[in-house]
Amino acid sequence: MSGEKHSSDWSILPENVFKFMESRTASNSAVFLLPTIKEMRESNPQLKLLDVGAGVGSMSVEFAQLVGSEGYVTAVDVNPVVIPRGQALAEQHGVTNISFETASGHKLPYEDGTFDIVHCHQVLTHNKDPWEILREMIRVAKPGGVIAAREGDLDTEVIWPPIPGVLKFHHDFEIKIITDRGGYRNAGRQLLSWALRAGAKREQITTSFSTWSYTEPEDRTLWASGMIGIALGPNLRESNIKAGVSAAEMDEMREGWAEWMKLDDAVLTMLHGEVIIRK
Amino acid sequence: MSGEKHSSDWSILPENVFKFMESRTASNSAVFLLPTIKEMRESNPQLKLLDVGAGVGSMSVEFAQLVGSEGYVTAVDVNPVVIPRGQALAEQHGVTNISFETASGHKLPYEDGTFDIVHCHQVLTHNKDPWEILREMIRVAKPGGVIAAREGDLDTEVIWPPIPGVLKFHHDFEIKIITDRGGYRNAGRQLLSWALRAGAKREQITTSFSTWSYTEPEDRTLWASGMIGIALGPNLRESNIKAGVSAAEMDEMREGWAEWMKLDDAVLTMLHGEVIIRK
Repeated sequence: MSGEKHSSDWSILPENVFKFMESRTASNSAVFLLPTIKEMRESNPQLKLLDVGAGVGSMSVEFAQLVGSEGYVTAVDVNPVVIPRGQALAEQHGVTNISFETASGHKLPYEDGTFDIVHCHQVLTHNKDPWEILREMIRVAKPGGVIAAREGDLDTEVIWPPIPGVLKFHHDFEIKIITDRGGYRNAGRQLLSWALRAGAKREQITTSFSTWSYTEPEDRTLWASGMIGIALGPNLRESNIKAGVSAAEMDEMREGWAEWMKLDDAVLTMLHGEVIIRK
Repeated sequence: MSGEKHSSDWSILPENVFKFMESRTASNSAVFLLPTIKEMRESNPQLKLLDVGAGVGSMSVEFAQLVGSEGYVTAVDVNPVVIPRGQALAEQHGVTNISFETASGHKLPYEDGTFDIVHCHQVLTHNKDPWEILREMIRVAKPGGVIAAREGDLDTEVIWPPIPGVLKFHHDFEIKIITDRGGYRNAGRQLLSWALRAGAKREQITTSFSTWSYTEPEDRTLWASGMIGIALGPNLRESNIKAGVSAAEMDEMREGWAEWMKLDDAVLTMLHGEVIIRK
């Protein structure tokens, strides 16, 4: 959610959006990268990690814990609004080996070969030219360093049962928000091709795939009430109507989620693509 | 692939189909169940595990290793053709705490409450009434035992880039083989609903989701040459034509896979649904 094109809306988002974003940690959203961090730290306790499009910083703060006290994390986001949130989260966790800076993934203000690990999560999908961000990430990585990215693939999002209002939300709203801004609905499957386009050779890249899910009862309540409260709530109602979503359609979507969250057989899951590039 | 409705074709399948099936192990296809087996074994070293629709037995043999020498695995399949293969595999691995039997998942020849763990993998999707198989699996599990199932969800299968012959294979052939026989194209997402329909209560069920992928270069070669050699090869050509797939369409699909497997940005992945039911 911390994409370049997303930022203009952030100032009007309510508190619970940030809470939602803060539920993402390295342990739940960068599992594919954890063994690499561990292995690299064993041979180099002074790892420098750059987190691009770090958003509220919940993944960055855990990365700072994972690289250890001799390591250091630089967390950047194009949107200055989120910086104090990340700083507060670090303080709250007693994490001091981290700094938050405002910077665009398209033009990272660092010398070539500065970082051991360069990471982004759910950032590329929001951009027209994701391979240019990856190219920048590769540039600022040290030779021998790694670049890691994870992106969802909305075309694989599974919502069951097929309640019309909820499917409308997915197809006419969730995907539309991304694609209307020039982003990609199927970033997960294209991530490998973007890495190649950014200049990586196939033999430098390792792919993997994973899922997230909001299917257990407490998770589906979190998700559905989040969607009702955030995306379809009063704060965004006006901008949704401006974007061509009618009030009646929003009501149908809200009712769909309200129905879905009460169902024992409700399922929500999505496939994610992952790459690790070794420079 | 070890489904009830699948069995009639097995006698005409070439050796490499079986090799393909034998690449499935507990370690790569039942990851969600491994911690439960470990935990249950700690309190009961004499675990009895039933593997339903065990097919060539490659998962069953590893289950027998996982339950340990005091435990015991019963592997059943509706198709007697595969029994000697499973027995040979067990012998090859020096596994003796296992037996292979012919039995239908719809009518398991065991008393109520016989097994600690009852498992199936890619079996339900091939059946019209998958909940009836689950009901049988629940019946033969002991009170306090677990029932575990994992099923693919073909509607989430990602094939990139979108080469027409390969997409035709997926939509008009792979999915059609399953649905023409009364099976389900989206078993992964329906698995939870089937568990409920089989009589489990929501609070007895834990869901999870995982992926498989044939994207790394050696894997995509294995997959594509497998599809060309098996599904589109001479052994099945006649039955494919009988089923309404023209020779020209098969050529297009073959050429599609041949093109796909050479591409650096080729991706193949799919989401799987998983449930563990605690009786």
